[in-house]
Amino acid sequence: MSIALIYPQRDVSDWVAALQAQEPELDIELWPEIRCPERVEFVLCWNQPAGLLQQFPNLRGISSFGAGVNHLLNDKSCPVNIPLARVVDPDLKQSMAEYVMLGVLVHFRRLADYRRQQELGEWLVQKVPHLSTIRVGIMGYGEIGRYVAHKLTDFGFKVHGWRRNRQHRDKLTVYTGEDELGEFLKRTEILVCLLPLTVDTENILNLQTFRQLPQHAYLINAARGAHLVEADLLAALKSGQLCGALLDVFRDEPLPGHHPFWKHAKITITPHIASVTNPESAAVQIVENYHRALRGEPLHNRVDRGRGY
Amino acid sequence: MSIALIYPQRDVSDWVAALQAQEPELDIELWPEIRCPERVEFVLCWNQPAGLLQQFPNLRGISSFGAGVNHLLNDKSCPVNIPLARVVDPDLKQSMAEYVMLGVLVHFRRLADYRRQQELGEWLVQKVPHLSTIRVGIMGYGEIGRYVAHKLTDFGFKVHGWRRNRQHRDKLTVYTGEDELGEFLKRTEILVCLLPLTVDTENILNLQTFRQLPQHAYLINAARGAHLVEADLLAALKSGQLCGALLDVFRDEPLPGHHPFWKHAKITITPHIASVTNPESAAVQIVENYHRALRGEPLHNRVDRGRGY
Repeated sequence: MSIALIYPQRDVSDWVAALQAQEPELDIELWPEIRCPERVEFVLCWNQPAGLLQQFPNLRGISSFGAGVNHLLNDKSCPVNIPLARVVDPDLKQSMAEYVMLGVLVHFRRLADYRRQQELGEWLVQKVPHLSTIRVGIMGYGEIGRYVAHKLTDFGFKVHGWRRNRQHRDKLTVYTGEDELGEFLKRTEILVCLLPLTVDTENILNLQTFRQLPQHAYLINAARGAHLVEADLLAALKSGQLCGALLDVFRDEPLPGHHPFWKHAKITITPHIASVTNPESAAVQIVENYHRALRGEPLHNRVDRGRGY
Repeated sequence: MSIALIYPQRDVSDWVAALQAQEPELDIELWPEIRCPERVEFVLCWNQPAGLLQQFPNLRGISSFGAGVNHLLNDKSCPVNIPLARVVDPDLKQSMAEYVMLGVLVHFRRLADYRRQQELGEWLVQKVPHLSTIRVGIMGYGEIGRYVAHKLTDFGFKVHGWRRNRQHRDKLTVYTGEDELGEFLKRTEILVCLLPLTVDTENILNLQTFRQLPQHAYLINAARGAHLVEADLLAALKSGQLCGALLDVFRDEPLPGHHPFWKHAKITITPHIASVTNPESAAVQIVENYHRALRGEPLHNRVDRGRGY
C-alpha cells in the first residue's frame, strides 16, 4: 500500500520530507512516476489531470493539498464513493490572515500610490482616512474567515462577516444568507472574499454585488477565481465603483499571458499564494487520515460533497 | 493671547478644525500670517524656520505636532526656558503599528517580487520561510515601540526590543544599552528603527550595526533620517548584508530629486507618513497643554531636553 502525491508543476520534495518526518516507512509515490497504481490506497492531490483518479483501483481516501476542494468536486473522474478530506491547519489560517492584512494595509496606507510616486521621484503625502472609518467585510465566515476577521479586529480594523447559514455566536457581526447580503455590502469599504466555491457562490463577485458597496470600495479575492465575473470587475474599476483589487486566484491558473488583468493599473496580482499550506504542519493530519482511510474510519476534516466544502 | 500653528508646506485646516472643536473660542494664528506675535503664548510647530521661535516675546509653552521633537531640540532659536511637549496619542502608536506591520508583511510575503513579476506577466510562487523563523527587532522600545512590538506579537511574529535603559518588565525580551546591542542584532531578521534622535542614536544605522545582523536582513526606518548613514545602507545593500529597506524618513525632507535612494530597486520610499498624528485625537492634549502653559503648570508629555525626548 502507498500514498500518491499529485501536484502538477510543483516540486513536492518538501511534502515528501514532511510526510516522512511523520512516518519514515511511508511508501510515497510521486506522480507522474507512479510505479504501481494498484498499491495506491490514498491520494494527496491538487489540480490533478482529468481522469487520473480513475487509475487507482484500490483507492480508499483522497485529500486535497489545501483547504480548497473544488479541483476534486469538479473532477468527474473523482470516485464518488471515496471519502474526501481537506487540510485545515493553523498555518493555513495564519497565512491567509497575513495576506488579507497585507492587502488591507497596502490599500489603506496607499502603498501603491507611494510606489508610483517613487518611480516619478515625487514626494507627496496621501491623505488617509481615520482607521475607524474603514470597515472590512469578510465573505465566507468559516474556519479561515473567522480567524482572519478576528486578527484584523485585534489589530484595530472594524470587521464584519457574511456567511450562508447562521452559526454559533461571534463577537463580530455576522450577516447571513441572501437576505442580509445587501446590509453586509453597504457597510463594506474593503470586501474580502474567502468563500468556498459552490454553485451558490460561483460568480458572486459581480456588478450587482459591487453596486451595493460604497463608492470606491476595494476588493480582495483570495478564494477562487470562479467567484469573480472578470468583465464585471473591469467595468466596476472603470466606473469608479471599485477603486482597486488584489487578486490571488483566477479562472485560469497560471493567469494567461494575454489576460487584461496583468497590465491593469488598479489590479494587483499574486500567483495563488495567499494561503499556503505548510507541509510540516499539515503532514500530521494527512498521515492520520491515511491510516483512518486504511482502517475504514471517518476522515478528519471530511468534505461534504453536497455542501461543497 | 493666542496659539500659533507653524507647519511649513502643509495645509493645517484639519488641525484648526480639530482644535476649535475642542474649544471654539481658541484664538489661532497661522504662520506665516501671524498678525500679532506679542499675543502668541503657545506654539504648535513642525520643522519651523530657524529663528522664528525668537519672535514671540510672551511664549509660555511649545508643542511638537507629533512625537518627534528634534526639530525643536536642534533649533538654536528655541528658547531653553520654555517647556516643550510632544504628542503621545493612541492614534500615533496605531499609525506606526500599521506602517511597521505593512513593511514587515510586504517584505515577508514578497510583495515587491510579485509586483515585478506582474510587470513582466510572470506567474511564479516565491518560497516564504515559516513565520516562526522571522524575528523582528524593534530599536527604540518606548511608548510607540512597545505598542508596535505587541501588535506584531499578537499577530504571530516573534519580536524583541532594544532600548537605552532597563525599564519595567515586559512580556517580550528587551535588550538594553550598548552591551546588549550585539545580542539584539544577531537575532534580528527584520530591524525596525523607532528610536528618538539623540546624540547617542544619530548614525546608529551604520555598517557596523548592519554587519551584526544575520545575512540578508531587512531594514525599516520610521524614526529619523539622521539615524541612518546613507552610504552605509547603499554598501550593505550592494554586499547583500541587507536585502532591502523601507524608509520613511530622510536627512533632507523632501528627499532631493537627485538622491540615489529614489531609483534603488531594493529601497522603498514613503514620504514621512508612517506615524501620522491625527488632529482629532491629539487636539485634546494640545488644548489641555495650552491651558497648563498659561497657568504655569507642568505640561503633559513634557520633553526632557537632557534626555532628548
